[in-house]
Amino acid sequence: MAAEKEGKKIYHLNIGQPDIATPPAYYEAIRRFDRKTLAYAESPGTPQLIDAVRGYYKRLDVELEPSDVLITTGGSEALLLTCLSILDPYTEVIIPEPYYPNYTTFVHAAGGVIRALPTNPWEGYRYADRERIESLITKNTRAILITNPGNPTGVVLNQEEMRMIADIAKEHDLFLICDEVYREFCYDEKFGVPTMARFRDIDENLVIVDSVSKRFSACGARVGCVVTRNKELQAALLKFCQSRLSVATIDQIGAAALYSVDPGFFLESKAEYRRRRDTVISRLRKIPGVVVEEPMGAFYVMASLPVDDSDKFQRWLLESFSDNGDTVMFAPGAPFYETPGKGINEVRIAYVLKQEDLERAMDVLAAGIAQYQRKVMKVKAHPAV
Amino acid sequence: MAAEKEGKKIYHLNIGQPDIATPPAYYEAIRRFDRKTLAYAESPGTPQLIDAVRGYYKRLDVELEPSDVLITTGGSEALLLTCLSILDPYTEVIIPEPYYPNYTTFVHAAGGVIRALPTNPWEGYRYADRERIESLITKNTRAILITNPGNPTGVVLNQEEMRMIADIAKEHDLFLICDEVYREFCYDEKFGVPTMARFRDIDENLVIVDSVSKRFSACGARVGCVVTRNKELQAALLKFCQSRLSVATIDQIGAAALYSVDPGFFLESKAEYRRRRDTVISRLRKIPGVVVEEPMGAFYVMASLPVDDSDKFQRWLLESFSDNGDTVMFAPGAPFYETPGKGINEVRIAYVLKQEDLERAMDVLAAGIAQYQRKVMKVKAHPAV
Repeated sequence: MAAEKEGKKIYHLNIGQPDIATPPAYYEAIRRFDRKTLAYAESPGTPQLIDAVRGYYKRLDVELEPSDVLITTGGSEALLLTCLSILDPYTEVIIPEPYYPNYTTFVHAAGGVIRALPTNPWEGYRYADRERIESLITKNTRAILITNPGNPTGVVLNQEEMRMIADIAKEHDLFLICDEVYREFCYDEKFGVPTMARFRDIDENLVIVDSVSKRFSACGARVGCVVTRNKELQAALLKFCQSRLSVATIDQIGAAALYSVDPGFFLESKAEYRRRRDTVISRLRKIPGVVVEEPMGAFYVMASLPVDDSDKFQRWLLESFSDNGDTVMFAPGAPFYETPGKGINEVRIAYVLKQEDLERAMDVLAAGIAQYQRKVMKVKAHPAV
Repeated sequence: MAAEKEGKKIYHLNIGQPDIATPPAYYEAIRRFDRKTLAYAESPGTPQLIDAVRGYYKRLDVELEPSDVLITTGGSEALLLTCLSILDPYTEVIIPEPYYPNYTTFVHAAGGVIRALPTNPWEGYRYADRERIESLITKNTRAILITNPGNPTGVVLNQEEMRMIADIAKEHDLFLICDEVYREFCYDEKFGVPTMARFRDIDENLVIVDSVSKRFSACGARVGCVVTRNKELQAALLKFCQSRLSVATIDQIGAAALYSVDPGFFLESKAEYRRRRDTVISRLRKIPGVVVEEPMGAFYVMASLPVDDSDKFQRWLLESFSDNGDTVMFAPGAPFYETPGKGINEVRIAYVLKQEDLERAMDVLAAGIAQYQRKVMKVKAHPAV
């Protein structure tokens, strides 16, 4: 990156790559691998990993049969195969926006169309509104896709909201695709470790997308899974799993070992992220003109900045700004929206750096906003109200 | 499997899982991994692995830019992403049949249609016939997809045939997708290590699908790549690569190490497979009524057996037959064909077992055919002609 070549230090708040150490169990397990031939694993996943996943869900009070779990190459493949299994050309998926932009690629790969459920920063991006959701359902609607806890918004559904969305899926005979990869990262005890899989009356509707990436800070393992009790969907997914033969053998061994990690690991990472969130939020609130609600989960915050265009602001931060040699990167908001023109002055901040770096990054951001307003937007100084 | 539970020994000639040891370089490399966080790798692949792939191609006299190589989760993902990038609903791909059945899933996932180029056992499944290929081209044709050396047939194209197919792609402005994952397994020196990538006049047409799976006996690594010099296609593929974030980090490290393996490894495995092929062919030729040509590459042989239905015969071998407690599995032929009714009495035999097991397996097959003809097909004994 040009800015780094110039010697600038960039604080990367733009990607969801946690800095937390991966539990050593992963590395220990893969180092013990001693089969002479690195053979294909079973197409639905190794029995050991499927059992480990089932054991983990059992601790969340969710009973699963082995066939309810299909191991995938990350949550990404879980999403792609789900879309390919569920969608036909021109069928529709309702997704609250802003949403994880790669959903677009997966839905479009299957020929599907996204119907965006609008939210806004002033309501903290909350989307669980029956009337608004139902107004988007057409005869072509095949699924509702939600991320809970939310990326990029950090929104977490409460029990009533989860139940209401489950009811909508059931009443309208839709698939409910729940991307729950941030399940462990809820910063209010009232949420517990949320999962739609506890609602047994939506067995035919529910598809859970899951992954070890965030849970165990093991993004590079590329191990995820689809959980569904819908037998017809299981068969469709299995066909795709067989066509790509298997998920990487050694990573499945590592992932199975991760599921034996002491639950204290989750508590520690959650506490660490909560501190980071608090830092980011308190600093953001001190910047005049920022609109932000405290996110309740995941490790992102979406905020509206007092700038004309967050993409242009980002480029300016990299090319024309430094605060004592430092600058900062976030993810501009527009790509998280389906609706053209939305999110222009919003950003997603991933709080995946350690405390002192985050503090410095927020100071740099505040200085950047002030200077950008003055130099680029030509905002004139005025007396404080 | 029921037959195994009954204590039968099954010789598995049904899947292309080699028994050759994976070079230790793979395991040594992954054991050395010592980053504390298992992070996402770069979406197009790690620079180290891309460089290793380029070095390998350079030894084949093929110069590649880094952007010409996109690392994928096995050859499978290379094929899926290529289909998703190239095909629109109802566009057509010409594929010689019999072909690797998973091609169907990948083409259909992208909404495409397969136009099968027919071949037959009496011609050794050869398909390089300009007239037959061109007769299948329509205004909807988008690509020709070949496997060279061939799975399931073992057919290898000679230089003139490769050139002729390249010319067709060029003249008709089609993509030429070459699945070359068996490139090292050619049993006649005249073929060398074949690759279409040496034809520089088809840069805009050519898409090579490649993998470490067979080359290094590392199927479980799930590391492959797409090689193309077509910039527009590179951009489309990269978009998909970014959407699924990355290929497993540790497997890419292992795969990069594989490319430093002494080329003697290829010569040894090739010699071993050649011996196995010779064994299988000489035994098959001794079975009356079998139609088989000597395959020149890969590690499969496709043959027509003197039975009414190879799928029914397979089930009978598992359920109702044993030769001193042994039986054998192959892949029934019909799933390798697009055209209904074809391949019914054909089988694909993967010669991936060691010499003595192969010999025994072929004896069991011969005994099975004789008994099946007598007991099930009620063929009456007749004096030898």
